[in-house]
Amino acid sequence: MEEPSPAGAVPDGDALHMARAIRLAALGRGTTSPNPVVGCVVVDAAGAHAGEGFHAYAGGPHAEVVALSEAGERARGGTAYVTLEPCDHTGRTGPCSQALLEAGVARVVVAVLDPNPEAAGGMSRLRAHGVRVDSGLMAEEAERGNAEWLTFVRLGRPHVTWKFAATLDGRSAAQDGTSQWITSPEARADVHRLRAESDAVVAGIGTVLADDPRLTARPDPRQSFHQSPHPATPRRAPLRVVVDSEARTPPGARVLSSEAPTLIAIADDAKTDLQAPLLRLPRAHPDGLDLRALLTELARRQIVSVFVEGGPALAGSFLREGLVDRVVAYLAPALLGSGAAALGPAGVRTITDTHRLVFEDVTPIGTDLRITARPASEEH
Amino acid sequence: MEEPSPAGAVPDGDALHMARAIRLAALGRGTTSPNPVVGCVVVDAAGAHAGEGFHAYAGGPHAEVVALSEAGERARGGTAYVTLEPCDHTGRTGPCSQALLEAGVARVVVAVLDPNPEAAGGMSRLRAHGVRVDSGLMAEEAERGNAEWLTFVRLGRPHVTWKFAATLDGRSAAQDGTSQWITSPEARADVHRLRAESDAVVAGIGTVLADDPRLTARPDPRQSFHQSPHPATPRRAPLRVVVDSEARTPPGARVLSSEAPTLIAIADDAKTDLQAPLLRLPRAHPDGLDLRALLTELARRQIVSVFVEGGPALAGSFLREGLVDRVVAYLAPALLGSGAAALGPAGVRTITDTHRLVFEDVTPIGTDLRITARPASEEH
Ligand SMILES: NC(=O)c1ccc[n+]([C@@H]2O[C@H](COP(=O)([O-])OP(=O)(O)OC[C@H]3O[C@@H](n4cnc5c(N)ncnc54)[C@H](OP(=O)(O)O)[C@@H]3O)[C@@H](O)[C@H]2O)c1
Ligand SMILES: NC(=O)c1ccc[n+]([C@@H]2O[C@H](COP(=O)([O-])OP(=O)(O)OC[C@H]3O[C@@H](n4cnc5c(N)ncnc54)[C@H](OP(=O)(O)O)[C@@H]3O)[C@@H](O)[C@H]2O)c1
Repeated sequence: MEEPSPAGAVPDGDALHMARAIRLAALGRGTTSPNPVVGCVVVDAAGAHAGEGFHAYAGGPHAEVVALSEAGERARGGTAYVTLEPCDHTGRTGPCSQALLEAGVARVVVAVLDPNPEAAGGMSRLRAHGVRVDSGLMAEEAERGNAEWLTFVRLGRPHVTWKFAATLDGRSAAQDGTSQWITSPEARADVHRLRAESDAVVAGIGTVLADDPRLTARPDPRQSFHQSPHPATPRRAPLRVVVDSEARTPPGARVLSSEAPTLIAIADDAKTDLQAPLLRLPRAHPDGLDLRALLTELARRQIVSVFVEGGPALAGSFLREGLVDRVVAYLAPALLGSGAAALGPAGVRTITDTHRLVFEDVTPIGTDLRITARPASEEH
Repeated sequence: MEEPSPAGAVPDGDALHMARAIRLAALGRGTTSPNPVVGCVVVDAAGAHAGEGFHAYAGGPHAEVVALSEAGERARGGTAYVTLEPCDHTGRTGPCSQALLEAGVARVVVAVLDPNPEAAGGMSRLRAHGVRVDSGLMAEEAERGNAEWLTFVRLGRPHVTWKFAATLDGRSAAQDGTSQWITSPEARADVHRLRAESDAVVAGIGTVLADDPRLTARPDPRQSFHQSPHPATPRRAPLRVVVDSEARTPPGARVLSSEAPTLIAIADDAKTDLQAPLLRLPRAHPDGLDLRALLTELARRQIVSVFVEGGPALAGSFLREGLVDRVVAYLAPALLGSGAAALGPAGVRTITDTHRLVFEDVTPIGTDLRITARPASEEH
């Protein structure tokens, strides 16, 4: 079978092994950047589980290599299940297509093709050497697990998640500006976990002036199932980015603390003597800085995923520019009826212009609901 | 066992039969008002299912009577599971306590005690005649199914459900006022089902002037699992109520159509020649009509459940007055960032005054989410 196989045509065991490979891949979330997450399961010629692995950090061994070395001689004549097309180029490690050939696997099942022209070609090389290759199995699920990296490679900019916390009626502060503990401690811990999985955390100067946040990732160590099982895995602290045209970030702001790197994005014509790493960007119409330019610059710095924490004005601009790839809303079981809205103007004048989403997941977190959605128009 | 029994002490079969009784009770939703919904399962002395029934409409036979007549002689020495304490008074039908005694059941298991002093006493009479009575089994679940009627009896006012439809950021119209199709056809059908289950549908004059709604219940006949299985069950059209201090309802408004009864609530000092049933009410501080007086008057008319459809101003007043017993939010997968908020001022100035809720249920309806919540402080 040389063509992408319809889901119905593959034996049931295939789906089981690929599902496990996808779960393995997810163990790399937050530590592989700027590489993709990849999981691999190897079964022997008789179909019995022989080895497995995942890509744990950039520069570390690829998932296929880990799984093949665990399988050893049992890989010969067997099948490898990989969530992403095996690479065919010699980067920090040798090409995985070569490793699979040398191990003598008879068949490779791939979920998602590699959109990266440098790395792609693994499938052709395997086929040229007589290995049967099936692709597309559980592609949608595998894509979702690799959404950040696939966006980075396909669009040349980081994947953007916008998070907000609000009451059921969409407000994030009461009339007098107070907003403490709208959401539960569990929801706040979940936010730290998502921050930790991101390469950068972005906030507007409005939020920095109002709340003086640290913007660091302080995940609960008890949530260990989301952490890498390898304590030695290098984990870089997310870059903190403040979008601040006029460089109004106070010198004593907590976001400038030494616990993590920070970048203050300011207008290219702004005058400042702020002692902090500055990124000069063009101004944009109708207001603020050019967010596309910001993302392009972050991509150049190998930032694959960005976590936008608001506030409402900045989030509205990201949405208006079509730069939001995922929305994570923490809705508290509460109603305010007045006070600041969670989302500011987002370029919608009439109902047909509304930003349509697709709900992907709803999970209770403490007493709150976490609702995850993605833009309806996005194909990736 | 004469005392309420802890859940752990009852045999497993009890929970199974009571769960079925609760499901049976729910079949009466929307048609029993002003009576409660009640379900009953009778098992014989050996514990085998012998009969079942539910209360289908006011004036119709009680659940116990239906179940006992199906069980016939097999009820003797058996057990009856009833979701609500059997009545002990002779209303339109004879007392159920008497029917259970005559049928010779040895044991009665009750979920919820009857708070209605007129009807209560069934348990004492049964015990006085040597029947073993256990109560409190699955009480919480049974309470939820009877929330409307229990509120009516305990608080002397109708149970109030506030429904709203909004985007994920809590807006119900775009900046230019357009709001068509924010939610899916499935969500709109679900609203008609909930309207049909209510005794009255209430809207503010703002909504009537803006949208000219019919406010009738037009449930999809295909959603038959929510309808009474008895085609002959009488089903009254919900009363339509407009909260309209100055009697501004236009004579040609669709809410005045002949397809269902309507009541226009106006201020006791309002001058009008509107040809429609009027209800004069005192004005309230800070604005509009006295909503407690409205509910008291509706209760007097045997209205057990009220479905408040908005708009934002009216909903805010109901909330501020502590008169909302259930919130049903239809959230569309969309973001607006500007436009009318789903909820108007609700008496909250600072975050500690927020109206705290408890999420009870989240169900996908079409492409939307239906989120059901109740006030955190409410004990019923
Ligand atoms: N509920 C939540 O999840 C949440 C999260 C974060 C914050 N908040 C709340 O949000 C409030 C602050 O929000 P905010 O809306 O005032 O400020 P903001 O969104 O944090 O920052 C807005 C500011 O960012 C700068 N900016 C630069 N480029 C921009 C662009 N392209 N688009 C938009 N803004 C750009 C602008 O100031 P310059 O022109 O000076 O650069 C603008 O005024 C605080 O009260 C905070 O507590 C809530
Ligand atoms: N998203 C949704 O689910 C939904 C549902 C319904 C409506 N809507 C939208 O809401 C908009 C209308 O809302 P609205 O807020 O302007 O009007 P509204 O809430 O429908 O009606 C408010 C009016 O009701 C009267 N009223 C009488 N007693 C009151 C009291 N105790 N508290 C509050 N109001 C009282 C007041 O006028 P008087 O003083 O003249 O009596 C008040 O102006 C429309 O655009 C409609 O499309 C949305």
